[in-house]
Amino acid sequence: MTTQQLVDQIRKKKSFLCIGLDTDLEKIPSHLLEEEDPIFEFNKAIIDATHQLCVAYKPNIAFYEAYGLKGWKSLERTIDYLNKNYPEIFTIADAKRGDIGNTSTRYAKAFFEELSFDSITIAPYMGKDSVEPFLAFQGKHTILLALTSNEGAFDYQTQIIDGTELYKKVLKTSRTYENSKNLMYVVGATKAEYLTAIREIIPDNFLLVPGVGAQGGSLQEVCRYGLTKDVGLLINSSRGIIYASDSANFAKAAKIEAEKLQNQMAVLLDSN
Amino acid sequence: MTTQQLVDQIRKKKSFLCIGLDTDLEKIPSHLLEEEDPIFEFNKAIIDATHQLCVAYKPNIAFYEAYGLKGWKSLERTIDYLNKNYPEIFTIADAKRGDIGNTSTRYAKAFFEELSFDSITIAPYMGKDSVEPFLAFQGKHTILLALTSNEGAFDYQTQIIDGTELYKKVLKTSRTYENSKNLMYVVGATKAEYLTAIREIIPDNFLLVPGVGAQGGSLQEVCRYGLTKDVGLLINSSRGIIYASDSANFAKAAKIEAEKLQNQMAVLLDSN
Repeated sequence: MTTQQLVDQIRKKKSFLCIGLDTDLEKIPSHLLEEEDPIFEFNKAIIDATHQLCVAYKPNIAFYEAYGLKGWKSLERTIDYLNKNYPEIFTIADAKRGDIGNTSTRYAKAFFEELSFDSITIAPYMGKDSVEPFLAFQGKHTILLALTSNEGAFDYQTQIIDGTELYKKVLKTSRTYENSKNLMYVVGATKAEYLTAIREIIPDNFLLVPGVGAQGGSLQEVCRYGLTKDVGLLINSSRGIIYASDSANFAKAAKIEAEKLQNQMAVLLDSN
Repeated sequence: MTTQQLVDQIRKKKSFLCIGLDTDLEKIPSHLLEEEDPIFEFNKAIIDATHQLCVAYKPNIAFYEAYGLKGWKSLERTIDYLNKNYPEIFTIADAKRGDIGNTSTRYAKAFFEELSFDSITIAPYMGKDSVEPFLAFQGKHTILLALTSNEGAFDYQTQIIDGTELYKKVLKTSRTYENSKNLMYVVGATKAEYLTAIREIIPDNFLLVPGVGAQGGSLQEVCRYGLTKDVGLLINSSRGIIYASDSANFAKAAKIEAEKLQNQMAVLLDSN
């Protein structure tokens, strides 16, 4: 998917919502546990109920890997279902991978080709030759961790390196990588006040913003400092939407929560 | 496995060799492609031929993920084969994972419980609460990326942060994490001259050292600066051993290459 196709979808749906599929057998409604593939059935119901309100889904790969082969199968079925039924949706493998060149190429093939995701999240620690193999895939997007929303972000990311914070160094350096036009960045919503400085370095790139809701970030704050002329934001919400209810009506409850965010987004887009 | 059990195995075998299972369908002998599970059959033959010469195996998870469900199945069969037949072997999931708390716990469960690996490689970028969930598993080991052997290591790892290089900051900070006794570190052999400074910060922790052979590091150099009283080193070789030959005799050829390294290690251990 091209960035323009993503922008067009955002304009059409008046939404820049990404729904995180952090699907956990201990949290999904118990009646689903009788199904052959409860994780897929849960995801399918959530997707069917919410796809008109969001522009992206983000399976958190750890949640699938934790169930071994069965989990991997559920992940495969979920991405296949999305690509077949809702091809306009932008898909994100939240995998946080990153390794030396030929190994990164393997991860890229796993997620871009084998599973046909539109994008993947990547850790920057190993530098240029760990990131560029992902960037080499045309029509695919590499979402680099910059400033995350967790407490540990202060261990290294906000420390001063080469005269600037490490996360800014990552933003600046990654812009020099080959095919850097395929870059997006993870920026935690809990640190909205950092967005002005971030936008000075990367005025146009899309930001994937976790941490609205469960992690305490404010949608209005993020938009104030982060919106661009082409929107440039994907706001992720996971637990607040998918676990809105554990009753038989869980999908409808999820839709209601997604609608609340989409309504706010429509207002913010109109006034932008 | 405890660190002491690993040290005992090293002393007994006079080897601190780790063999990397970067198993690639395009590189394994073509006669294996007729098997139902060529990747597992290749790994099994390599393991059977070399297990007395090494103390650890390190499947590179990307190589398995790239083949989707089939690859995950081959990985599962490989680790099960190792745990059942050679329980004295230290197993490393070279996965380079790392995410916020509850997600890191999922990855830890995937590799420590579901697949029963003894250890996993982890990226430090997201800090304390992304690493500690792995450290919480007793009898398991978390191998944190410090200084990697690739060119991109110079993008961030060797930059000065808080008065010291980022990789040294990672070494120092991670020592303050809960259960830090379960930490080992990745240090690339191509930068052996850095080892003196590294040993000043972490005098005892085991180092996993890739880059001997294919990436040009010297075993003697690494040992001169990196050996501790309890050895403290695992030297990894992947392609140089497992792809020594693509003939029907590939396992025997791998054994010969492993033997060369083990012989050098025996001399280095005796003179330590």
